Amino acid sequence: MINPHFKEFLRSQEETFLTPAENLAVLIDTHNMDHAKLVLTHMAYSRVPVVTQEGKFVGTIGLTEITRYQLENELSDEDLNQDISSIVKTDVAVVSEFYSLTQVMHDLIDQSFLPVVDQDGFFKGIITRKAILKAINSMLHKFADDYVIEEKDDSH
Amino acid sequence: MINPHFKEFLRSQEETFLTPAENLAVLIDTHNMDHAKLVLTHMAYSRVPVVTQEGKFVGTIGLTEITRYQLENELSDEDLNQDISSIVKTDVAVVSEFYSLTQVMHDLIDQSFLPVVDQDGFFKGIITRKAILKAINSMLHKFADDYVIEEKDDSH
Repeated sequence: MINPHFKEFLRSQEETFLTPAENLAVLIDTHNMDHAKLVLTHMAYSRVPVVTQEGKFVGTIGLTEITRYQLENELSDEDLNQDISSIVKTDVAVVSEFYSLTQVMHDLIDQSFLPVVDQDGFFKGIITRKAILKAINSMLHKFADDYVIEEKDDSH
Repeated sequence: MINPHFKEFLRSQEETFLTPAENLAVLIDTHNMDHAKLVLTHMAYSRVPVVTQEGKFVGTIGLTEITRYQLENELSDEDLNQDISSIVKTDVAVVSEFYSLTQVMHDLIDQSFLPVVDQDGFFKGIITRKAILKAINSMLHKFADDYVIEEKDDSH
């Protein structure tokens, strides 16, 4: 379990954890692969969330899936006029809106961002390693403004 | 500045920070683009370090650079028989072997991994967000085994 004082400090910065869906580049599962390829080539992120037209979470996609599909099937860029749904990565860890910090920290060790999905399956945004590192960095610098830390005395 | 107690705790796990060069997939700057594309398509990482034949650090490369080059120049995969040196991303933050934790935490906010380069320019390995998050997670759980944390009393 995460120490309650750390949890309290980090929870106080919680509004910085979530990047809301409306601030994110996402792809729709009916988008064509060539469109997805173009978008992914010209953005700063190597992987983006994929949602349905209605906003339900489907998975994530990166250039890796598109290039792999293209190489394996020997397809030219002109052959990429089919939707991305068949190649979206769907085995992705997600968290609910009522996530625990312990869970988030654990899952972010293996995934560079965690999609946040509500109980009806709608995509609400992502929590990234970057955002958590920012909050942690602030904690490493400022925690001692509010708390006294002392080494335990082994002689007792 | 990072609180000295946190620094001490994290420094005690320092051997887990660095993934040494010999455990990493890297590309050589004389490798052809088609080889790089194949390697990057079949690995778990979206970006890898690029070094010279002698082991000096050059930069990093991902599918993004290759796909962008291919799209902009309308090249087929057969046209990719040229070396990657012209498209390697070289504006990359690096740290020395004598890095400070403060610097590493700061730079990892904008870059998912930091190449570690010695004074002669040789590539020694990388420090990833993942490795730092692992160490931080361990700190969040175990710090209070060795330290007493108390809220400061505002009445004084």
